[in-house]
Amino acid sequence: MRLVVALLLASAGSAWASGDQEYTCNASQLLSAELVAEIRSYAPVVQSILDYVIRGPERNRTYEELARFVDRFGARISGSRNLENAIDYTAELLGSQGLDAVYTERVLVPHWVRGNESAWIVRPRMQRLNMLGLGGSVGTSPAGIIAPVFVAKSFDELRANASKARGKVVVFDEEFTSYDRTVLYRESGASEAERVGAVAALVRSVTPFSIGSPHTGWMSYVGNEPRIPCASITVEDAQLLRRLQDRGIEAYVHLTMDAKSLPLATSRNTIAELWGRTNPDEVVLVSGHLDSWDVGQGAMDDGGGAFISWRALALLRRLGLRPRRTLRALLWTGEEEGVWGGQAYYERHRDRIGSSLNLVMESDLGTFRPLGLRFAAADPRARCMAAQVLSLFGSINATRLILGPDGPDIQSWVDSGVPGASLDTANKEYFYFHHTDGDTMTVEDPTNLDLCTAFWAAAAFVFADLSERLPR
Amino acid sequence: MRLVVALLLASAGSAWASGDQEYTCNASQLLSAELVAEIRSYAPVVQSILDYVIRGPERNRTYEELARFVDRFGARISGSRNLENAIDYTAELLGSQGLDAVYTERVLVPHWVRGNESAWIVRPRMQRLNMLGLGGSVGTSPAGIIAPVFVAKSFDELRANASKARGKVVVFDEEFTSYDRTVLYRESGASEAERVGAVAALVRSVTPFSIGSPHTGWMSYVGNEPRIPCASITVEDAQLLRRLQDRGIEAYVHLTMDAKSLPLATSRNTIAELWGRTNPDEVVLVSGHLDSWDVGQGAMDDGGGAFISWRALALLRRLGLRPRRTLRALLWTGEEEGVWGGQAYYERHRDRIGSSLNLVMESDLGTFRPLGLRFAAADPRARCMAAQVLSLFGSINATRLILGPDGPDIQSWVDSGVPGASLDTANKEYFYFHHTDGDTMTVEDPTNLDLCTAFWAAAAFVFADLSERLPR
Repeated sequence: MRLVVALLLASAGSAWASGDQEYTCNASQLLSAELVAEIRSYAPVVQSILDYVIRGPERNRTYEELARFVDRFGARISGSRNLENAIDYTAELLGSQGLDAVYTERVLVPHWVRGNESAWIVRPRMQRLNMLGLGGSVGTSPAGIIAPVFVAKSFDELRANASKARGKVVVFDEEFTSYDRTVLYRESGASEAERVGAVAALVRSVTPFSIGSPHTGWMSYVGNEPRIPCASITVEDAQLLRRLQDRGIEAYVHLTMDAKSLPLATSRNTIAELWGRTNPDEVVLVSGHLDSWDVGQGAMDDGGGAFISWRALALLRRLGLRPRRTLRALLWTGEEEGVWGGQAYYERHRDRIGSSLNLVMESDLGTFRPLGLRFAAADPRARCMAAQVLSLFGSINATRLILGPDGPDIQSWVDSGVPGASLDTANKEYFYFHHTDGDTMTVEDPTNLDLCTAFWAAAAFVFADLSERLPR
Repeated sequence: MRLVVALLLASAGSAWASGDQEYTCNASQLLSAELVAEIRSYAPVVQSILDYVIRGPERNRTYEELARFVDRFGARISGSRNLENAIDYTAELLGSQGLDAVYTERVLVPHWVRGNESAWIVRPRMQRLNMLGLGGSVGTSPAGIIAPVFVAKSFDELRANASKARGKVVVFDEEFTSYDRTVLYRESGASEAERVGAVAALVRSVTPFSIGSPHTGWMSYVGNEPRIPCASITVEDAQLLRRLQDRGIEAYVHLTMDAKSLPLATSRNTIAELWGRTNPDEVVLVSGHLDSWDVGQGAMDDGGGAFISWRALALLRRLGLRPRRTLRALLWTGEEEGVWGGQAYYERHRDRIGSSLNLVMESDLGTFRPLGLRFAAADPRARCMAAQVLSLFGSINATRLILGPDGPDIQSWVDSGVPGASLDTANKEYFYFHHTDGDTMTVEDPTNLDLCTAFWAAAAFVFADLSERLPR
């Protein structure tokens, strides 16, 4: 699982990569004139899908469906009864859309339970710390841990001061640079702290912006080394503790966490299909994850991605647009604990359907204003085909193709050679809300959700309907 | 006190007024050529002050002093022992700056205590609400209040649906437009709700942006009408409750607050002086408030304003720059509960020093990058003199003069005809952090604090040293 986690972390980071460059190609060199013309011929149907969603009877409907869902269930953490109820609800909702098949596949997922928790600075003065235990962490004894604090800005600084950290609560006050780099402190902070003899670890929340807001997320321990409790604190409080230390003032923290990991639980990936009219065994997959963290509503991460995916199939069905190939919507489970749903699906199906998958698509970095796709394919012709398809979306300014997808649940397919695409949106505030109480419908915008839904449906339709499949 | 509160609210809003227009004047028409030339002659001394703070030995010192202060005391609510300790510390610190006088003046202030508090949605599902009781609110019984919710977007909507609100917890889901307008829901929401028979009021936090962050603040009851408990909830949760209501789903809330108001407590305004070299009885006053809410650190509201004010005097003293008139730094107390320190000072001194006050200055809307001054004076020559003084600050782009000050503690002086100025900074995010756990040193920037300090000191110096006082 750790490899998968590492892939997730590495890929998710590019939402913040500053070096994104738009890909362009000389289509007349790479693609046949017939194919270029065929792609261009989809302009009217693409526009009709956009109009239907943005200005027609589907207007605001993704927002309304998503709000109804997240307001009803709230946060949906793996292992919870609530997530399974949410999956039941979604499967029933998909069943009412007139699609060709709706089913679920069982997946074992972690079952971590937060319980009561608190952290206080108890010296030099009392101050409650806004905190969230990290998923996967062990708890403390009921009385909690009271210990002095040692603050480090990096793993290197911690190792260089190992003797000062022994018996203490290590606080990581790492700078946010990009998600993929900074999240290593959340992921590995506990193990790094334990190795120098710390009794607990507190990690500055992985975000570039804070209003006293703690961000949870998954962490993991290395092998069978001793496990110490680990929680996130706010940017503000990590900086406070560092300033105190810089002044020679020893702070003490009292940390109490009831957290525990229960045996793996049974959950389900939720799947819906619109069968292809000529090549039903070839598949374009669109996806997002239904599970969330246990804070906020999981509207942004990843209710929006899951809902635009099933909505894409449902509205094509209502429009009577059945592509040559099958469209399959995958609503993953257990993503937050390390892509359990995505990995289970890959392992179950790679032999049977690997060769039939034409394209795997995922939306898991927000459903803000769509910009285009992040795309990965080994064959330059596939990339150029994708760029040509995106040129059909000029009317909504969503023509950008960036190389490299950002879809944790589809990563194994991409690594095995299947072309992959993820939704690219104007998500510069994504990590402000990520894994916090601020991940709610307030982040979502009805018009942007319409644009994402329409874009997602139309792009998936074109890829699934082209006479040529994407070359590998 | 209610009048004062109303003035405070009305004036504080202009941080968000979109219609701010820069004031300009034709100096050759309004001012004598000698005065214009005299103001211009301050360019070298202004630059020397800027250089001393921004690039010289004072660099980063305001940030360091402020951080040391807010890290030591944290939040400083009126009536608390902690605020009085913070005042003792500050008076001692000011006493070490070589100024001509440092003293305090007693002020009676409210003593409201939050106690434990919580709010939960208990139906249709359990969800904890991030909340902060509003200052001045009564508490609930120990068992709390459990009641259905009625959500209104405005006072008008509440009154039009009075019968639906009876016996319920009224939730105000008002849109944020500008602070001065939106804060009326925090201020008067409880009374408005009580008039239609509500048992408690929950007010959407007064902010344009949220990460699940509740914002506290003062509220007040009307006369001897019955008092119901009142708390702020997040933008996100107010919108959630409204969506549930719109769908016909009745939500219930369980609100528990231990809040209570104790008898008025004794606090102090803290005052330091640099006596004028020729006109010591004429005074330019610079000010900010030392008290804060009981969340965050009160670094932005208003540690920064208080600290640049005393720092201005201290650094002029070190530079050997003693202006013709006296500079007086006023660090107010009891501002957050309705400008108790400012009002007490006005009432105590208006007969004796009203005519000797040349200019009253306050910084209470953040110490971000300085832009210039907000300024109020009846005489157009005074406004034109201020604009000429600001033209000296071109090197730091702080030349803007906006009409109308934003200084709650100086408002009574301004209303009585004393020219008033407040620090205008690039504070578009001010209300993101206002009265939250996010009001910490993380909001403050060392360079911006240097710029504010230097600007504040140099502007105050010029006003205090000009051969002509500002005409009324």
